[in-house]
Amino acid sequence: MGVALQFDNRDIISIKDFSRKEINYILEISKTMEPLAYEGSNTLRGKILATLFFEPSTRTRLSFEAAMQKLGGSTIGFAESEIASVKKGENLADTIRTVENYADVIVLRHPLEGAARLAAEFSKVPIINGGTGAEEHPTQALLDLYTIQKEKGRIDGLKIALVGDLRYGRTVRSLAFALSLYNVKLFLVSPETLRMRREVLNTICEKISVIEGEDLEEIVPQVDVLYATRIQKERFPDPAEYAKVKGVYKIDKNTISNAKEDLVILHPLPRLDEISAEIDATPQARYFQQAWNGIVVRMALLSLVLGCVV
Amino acid sequence: MGVALQFDNRDIISIKDFSRKEINYILEISKTMEPLAYEGSNTLRGKILATLFFEPSTRTRLSFEAAMQKLGGSTIGFAESEIASVKKGENLADTIRTVENYADVIVLRHPLEGAARLAAEFSKVPIINGGTGAEEHPTQALLDLYTIQKEKGRIDGLKIALVGDLRYGRTVRSLAFALSLYNVKLFLVSPETLRMRREVLNTICEKISVIEGEDLEEIVPQVDVLYATRIQKERFPDPAEYAKVKGVYKIDKNTISNAKEDLVILHPLPRLDEISAEIDATPQARYFQQAWNGIVVRMALLSLVLGCVV
Amino acid sequence: MGVALQFDNRDIISIKDFSRKEINYILEISKTMEPLAYEGSNTLRGKILATLFFEPSTRTRLSFEAAMQKLGGSTIGFAESEIASVKKGENLADTIRTVENYADVIVLRHPLEGAARLAAEFSKVPIINGGTGAEEHPTQALLDLYTIQKEKGRIDGLKIALVGDLRYGRTVRSLAFALSLYNVKLFLVSPETLRMRREVLNTICEKISVIEGEDLEEIVPQVDVLYATRIQKERFPDPAEYAKVKGVYKIDKNTISNAKEDLVILHPLPRLDEISAEIDATPQARYFQQAWNGIVVRMALLSLVLGCVV
Repeated sequence: MGVALQFDNRDIISIKDFSRKEINYILEISKTMEPLAYEGSNTLRGKILATLFFEPSTRTRLSFEAAMQKLGGSTIGFAESEIASVKKGENLADTIRTVENYADVIVLRHPLEGAARLAAEFSKVPIINGGTGAEEHPTQALLDLYTIQKEKGRIDGLKIALVGDLRYGRTVRSLAFALSLYNVKLFLVSPETLRMRREVLNTICEKISVIEGEDLEEIVPQVDVLYATRIQKERFPDPAEYAKVKGVYKIDKNTISNAKEDLVILHPLPRLDEISAEIDATPQARYFQQAWNGIVVRMALLSLVLGCVV
Repeated sequence: MGVALQFDNRDIISIKDFSRKEINYILEISKTMEPLAYEGSNTLRGKILATLFFEPSTRTRLSFEAAMQKLGGSTIGFAESEIASVKKGENLADTIRTVENYADVIVLRHPLEGAARLAAEFSKVPIINGGTGAEEHPTQALLDLYTIQKEKGRIDGLKIALVGDLRYGRTVRSLAFALSLYNVKLFLVSPETLRMRREVLNTICEKISVIEGEDLEEIVPQVDVLYATRIQKERFPDPAEYAKVKGVYKIDKNTISNAKEDLVILHPLPRLDEISAEIDATPQARYFQQAWNGIVVRMALLSLVLGCVV
Repeated sequence: MGVALQFDNRDIISIKDFSRKEINYILEISKTMEPLAYEGSNTLRGKILATLFFEPSTRTRLSFEAAMQKLGGSTIGFAESEIASVKKGENLADTIRTVENYADVIVLRHPLEGAARLAAEFSKVPIINGGTGAEEHPTQALLDLYTIQKEKGRIDGLKIALVGDLRYGRTVRSLAFALSLYNVKLFLVSPETLRMRREVLNTICEKISVIEGEDLEEIVPQVDVLYATRIQKERFPDPAEYAKVKGVYKIDKNTISNAKEDLVILHPLPRLDEISAEIDATPQARYFQQAWNGIVVRMALLSLVLGCVV
């Protein structure tokens, strides 16, 4: 049996809080959720999820709500524009200490780094980080890992390129940390100004082989997974800086003409023009399947932190 | 038995996609939903409806959500101001290819004509058009038909007046197409600048008798059904044009003093001052009953496209 | 047995509509909801709550939604920014006469005094006032009473101070009326410009002993319950008037150094700086427990007006 893993009532704040063994366990539980995602289930009947989104998100919010409902639970919450008590000047700790009385688990998205950690310190119910600042998006990293494992049958031994904005993108940063727990070779492809931050690089380079570069064409033929990201205008302090790098990588059929036949192309979405529409119909494109995988991984996480995995 | 009608997994995009026989079938199934709307039901337990509203709507959104919940299903979605991924620049096709992973059926409202048709091309799950551009609002037309049949016992043989903005109103356009499948006499009452568009007229005049006019008083005594519409400021390209026709028809007790005793007055709501409050308490007023009928018709549509009509 | 109390299909508009006997009955039913709030229940399965919030609120809306879901019911609704039909110019009566067809009970928050009363006149389904104008917030008053009784074991015989904005705060006004039905001594502590309005004072002074004052320090040692309120910027006609009184009372450890040992500190939340964070961890602080009590009181109210208390 081995040591039991403790997830009941646990917060999901940072991918860095999890060991490889724990992540593998989450991926395993996620797989058992696939049939429940089709057929529905009642394991979380009577439980309430609160989605507190202090920043715009369609995908993450709807995905968590659908996951909760597929397990028989229900949802309350707000999205950006409705945040009444915040307009009235309430601080995050008070919001959490109120909402923990209404819900059994809270998913928080917030523009400030550290907000989810702070919320967890005050909350009696588990906090799941639904994206905070430019720093963390652990459930996205987990669904990315799940997708890679599902599509390639494994994570160890793969060559994986992360492409685009590696400086401001929280998704790619959480994913890089997660991948550093596996035996992968990582290619980081970005313009000079959008390179992954030094402190992140330091941590992951200790564990795995990392190659940085700017030339996407050169790297494509070498990799098993190509993970593209949107260059996020809203995270740039300076619009001029954004204008310079906007659209610098555009993946089209020509880009992947020398790729391995079983290349898998991923993207956290939404995309602008990083991936040409002509790629959508290719067997390499797996970014819409990621949305489905997001459901099963979030079903697993909700079940785990609510102590409802049997 | 006759030929079985196929609704399972079907999109509801335009009233023009349906034959008279199919519409009659929808109205029949709607009738069977009346007791379920009172008592509740579990036929859609475990199913999720996504309401994607890219344009304001209270009535249509809440009506679909209530319909889904009365059948035991649940809902996710967004309304206008929260559309995060759209702010981030996502196109509709990508939104649909994501949300189809979260939900079993999608209701879409969108400012652009053709949006629902486009969504249906990309979606694996059924798309129901909740109002697109100035062109189509098929579920409103179906609930209008249902209301007429419920109130008058039939549709064939009736004289029906559509009054107000026949140029920009999508509701009235979808309804005119629907009515042209029945043996009705249609009176179109509008100011010159708000006449029904030529291409719509061409289609319906081939099938039924249509009389256009500006004088409401003259037409009222002749009709069985008076369908009033709001002149929708938000659809006018030119505010001056709106100012000229605003309030041109106001139905009050005087207007209907010479009407048939069993006249039925309908309105898709919301109204401004097209119908005076003094009409509300008359036996002719049926526009608030339309809201209830909207629930049962939408329960029928959700059940049909999800293959849950037994 | 005594006389049966009638709550089935009753509106909850003003605390002034309820006798002491009726309020006690609500508090009693609330107590029976405590275990259901933990375990969940199905007594309202198939029922729909519509939350119509024409004004910002996180707390009241989420609290009602959670209460409904804990009883097995479901929810539809809108919050401030989505109010499409209102943007289109619809009046409240029409909105109510539409939504009553979608839902079994309606909670209304509205900026205008009298809005809930007006809604109740038009509605076939029970209306619960979720806060209207600066005048009424009856469900908040009920949860405040419930909290006082739970914390102190009784209401009669207590000395209670209401502190802060007694002029514009609807919470404190509804609470003062409710307390005037009990044998309490009331201290009203506010700056001169924020004193409780004359017409409110007239009514409650007839029934109970009321002492007005500006000096919080002097009053603290005398009372059993200290009820602090936020000075609500959004209710001030004149920002300069707000600036003068903002932050005038700040409850910290020093403030309560001479208080009774078993003092209970309450606040309807959200707070700004009326209560220092250092108070949060003291045994006197009970304002986050109020949020939980809000759930059980609202479960009781929903059950009562829907005729589902057995």
